Amino acid sequence: MAMTVPKEFFSPKSVAVIGASRTKGKVGHEVLKNFVQKFKGKIACVNPKAKSILGKACYPSIRNVSGKVDLAVITTSAAVVPQVLRDCVAKKVPAVILITSGFGELGDEGQHREQDLKKIISGSKTRVIGPNCMGIMSGAVDTIFNPAEKQKRPGKGGIAFLSQSGAVGSTIIDWLAEEGIGISKFISYGNQMDIDESDLIDALKKDKDTKVITLYLEGVKDGKKFLSNAKATTKSKPIIAIKAGKTSAGQKAVMSHTGALAGAAEIYSGAFKQAGVIEVQTWEELFDAAIAFGTQPLPKGNRLAIVTDGGGFGVLATDQAEKLGIELPAPPENPARIFKQRFPEYVSTKNPIDLTGDADAERYRISIEECLKSNAYDGVIAITLFQLPSLDPKVVDIMIQLNKKYKKPLLVCATGSSYSQKLMKKLEANGIPVYPTPERAVTAFASLYKFKR
Amino acid sequence: MAMTVPKEFFSPKSVAVIGASRTKGKVGHEVLKNFVQKFKGKIACVNPKAKSILGKACYPSIRNVSGKVDLAVITTSAAVVPQVLRDCVAKKVPAVILITSGFGELGDEGQHREQDLKKIISGSKTRVIGPNCMGIMSGAVDTIFNPAEKQKRPGKGGIAFLSQSGAVGSTIIDWLAEEGIGISKFISYGNQMDIDESDLIDALKKDKDTKVITLYLEGVKDGKKFLSNAKATTKSKPIIAIKAGKTSAGQKAVMSHTGALAGAAEIYSGAFKQAGVIEVQTWEELFDAAIAFGTQPLPKGNRLAIVTDGGGFGVLATDQAEKLGIELPAPPENPARIFKQRFPEYVSTKNPIDLTGDADAERYRISIEECLKSNAYDGVIAITLFQLPSLDPKVVDIMIQLNKKYKKPLLVCATGSSYSQKLMKKLEANGIPVYPTPERAVTAFASLYKFKR
Repeated sequence: MAMTVPKEFFSPKSVAVIGASRTKGKVGHEVLKNFVQKFKGKIACVNPKAKSILGKACYPSIRNVSGKVDLAVITTSAAVVPQVLRDCVAKKVPAVILITSGFGELGDEGQHREQDLKKIISGSKTRVIGPNCMGIMSGAVDTIFNPAEKQKRPGKGGIAFLSQSGAVGSTIIDWLAEEGIGISKFISYGNQMDIDESDLIDALKKDKDTKVITLYLEGVKDGKKFLSNAKATTKSKPIIAIKAGKTSAGQKAVMSHTGALAGAAEIYSGAFKQAGVIEVQTWEELFDAAIAFGTQPLPKGNRLAIVTDGGGFGVLATDQAEKLGIELPAPPENPARIFKQRFPEYVSTKNPIDLTGDADAERYRISIEECLKSNAYDGVIAITLFQLPSLDPKVVDIMIQLNKKYKKPLLVCATGSSYSQKLMKKLEANGIPVYPTPERAVTAFASLYKFKR
Repeated sequence: MAMTVPKEFFSPKSVAVIGASRTKGKVGHEVLKNFVQKFKGKIACVNPKAKSILGKACYPSIRNVSGKVDLAVITTSAAVVPQVLRDCVAKKVPAVILITSGFGELGDEGQHREQDLKKIISGSKTRVIGPNCMGIMSGAVDTIFNPAEKQKRPGKGGIAFLSQSGAVGSTIIDWLAEEGIGISKFISYGNQMDIDESDLIDALKKDKDTKVITLYLEGVKDGKKFLSNAKATTKSKPIIAIKAGKTSAGQKAVMSHTGALAGAAEIYSGAFKQAGVIEVQTWEELFDAAIAFGTQPLPKGNRLAIVTDGGGFGVLATDQAEKLGIELPAPPENPARIFKQRFPEYVSTKNPIDLTGDADAERYRISIEECLKSNAYDGVIAITLFQLPSLDPKVVDIMIQLNKKYKKPLLVCATGSSYSQKLMKKLEANGIPVYPTPERAVTAFASLYKFKR
């Protein structure tokens, strides 16, 4: 059954943390602290043993909180969850994030307990994300219990992350924040006893902040619903998905993680294809595709120009392009003539264009701009080994400027220590994705093309 | 023909930089600067237009330098290379690194010029690495012309890198230095007009500082010789190789890079197999395998224990293990009993052992140590999401201690922003390789097992 995800999950006016704690490191403390630091609306604590925590009044039950509560976050032990959830229903709380674990993922007994929770909300207006999840990071709502000194929070951007696994999802967020890449929403949805991945996909379809939806999936709850919601979404927005538990050993691991029925790998791959979902095979590929879709326009075709100052990386990129069906046409007359005029004779002006080990920023400007301009190319990958003595760091500003001027994808491959990392972060903070190896850059371009097609 | 690589390449007593320059950023300046900063022996400059550079006397030709010259580094333009090489032969210089490009990689005409160079050294005692290379980084010899402020230098360690491509090889070095991982020798050998990859493999076989040899290869010069030298080496030391130019487009790219005949991919894969060389498919895999071989012992078998605090990463690791034929046996009675006693009921004590989102350092200590101790396992991968509030950073010290105590491979998977990165670097500086994704960690373990088998 299709279900609308209440807007109170993402823009509540009042919240309650049930199981709020004064002990640093406890989930009920870290979640409350996040709200105290970022949330401008009303914050109530539910803890029968305290009067106030972090300056917020405590109540024995959510029923005692005066006024409406839009969003309740449950961080108590599993034993008391049925009671506090009953209280939420009685209080008519529209949105509940149930972080507590110890349900469906524990096997038969836990699954019974999860069924009991479903009965409690049945017929009510209370909708639940979880249990066994980290919840939401979106604007002022941040129920991710990893403390800010251990995990950074990204700024605003076009990438939404849906993750059945909390810890796994939160590391990608931490890494994106480090790189200066923004997100629209992060939702760790756990055992999906009520709201499932398909409901969330539908909600993100309508979300104007979200440019691309990424999805870490262990098992889909309702195959038909997933197919229908995903299909409707990919007409306008890309979905990139990784299915964990594709092997038989992996399926067993899924059972003791989120209690999902992992199902046969082929069925999932078939469904993804039918729904226009881009399936990736590794965690890294998910990340790499996400930053390409989140920042760059789609290419019109598969004709790629590769510019490099390291010939070897050019060769590896070429191998990967051929493997993935990406064309590398030689420069047509017009840019070719300009290259001959402006470059020393030892520069290889085929494709890859090898600017060689004494490349300077100007060679990059000419080659990238002429390829972005040319009708012969749908996108450019610039392999930039910043370590070369002749290469001025202003090459980064040139790329940022060219990326704004031309509406074609520009991806960069670079790697190295602090000097290079500073330049790489500057590119990423300005919306140019950077990949540490040529193979990964080409694979990301191929993902963009795959969705376009 | 087998050729001994003169020891003067690695431990010269006197050196000359031919084409030494006072202009910052020029190759002849950067190479000279490296020697001035690190080399304790005699340094001469060859530059007919200067009296001294960086405090070192200049000579119009190497013939005018008094006393023996063990190692000459040529950084001049291609046009004068024949003359300066003739001078090196006349001076009886045993070791020459020819950095200059503009030879075989430029096609027919360049190949003729390279043949002419070969004639010059023919019958002499002068041996050449290059042309079109970056040369050597080994102890006080550092001809890598990327300036130190742009590229870091790694400390001492067991990994040797042989790279046909200079720029490509130097980025891996830069990245290793950033991570605190040491190398024994880095050799960028370019067009291999004289000393080829097989000669260098033979030299590294005998090198007691080198624990593992990694190889970026575009084309082998003499197939028989490669097979024979590689085979003799892999009896005692692993060789990990990546062959670039495996596709037809990639082969063309190789031609304009190092001028090598790339040859059919299948022939290379067959030869690697026959010689006991571990072939990897991507640049990343080369790096990942290198740090595993460079730091960890070989596993006795393929039975792996996975410990995690993020269930999703455990699932992805499991999928990858099954794909690569790595076994994940459930804990036998003995550790299983201890796990039941010491861990809360919601900890999943199968394999992966999911310590869950409130894991602490003690759970890691118990699970890693019991698996390393147990006869049921040949190695452990610890997936450690440091971001969790309950996880004390001392978990890193525990891992370092356990890695020293037990002679089984221990690999870590972790990722994140500055907080996590600091802990990851500490692990790597103490000889524990860290991988950003579960798939990469499992693949690295599989490489170790592959060589052992």
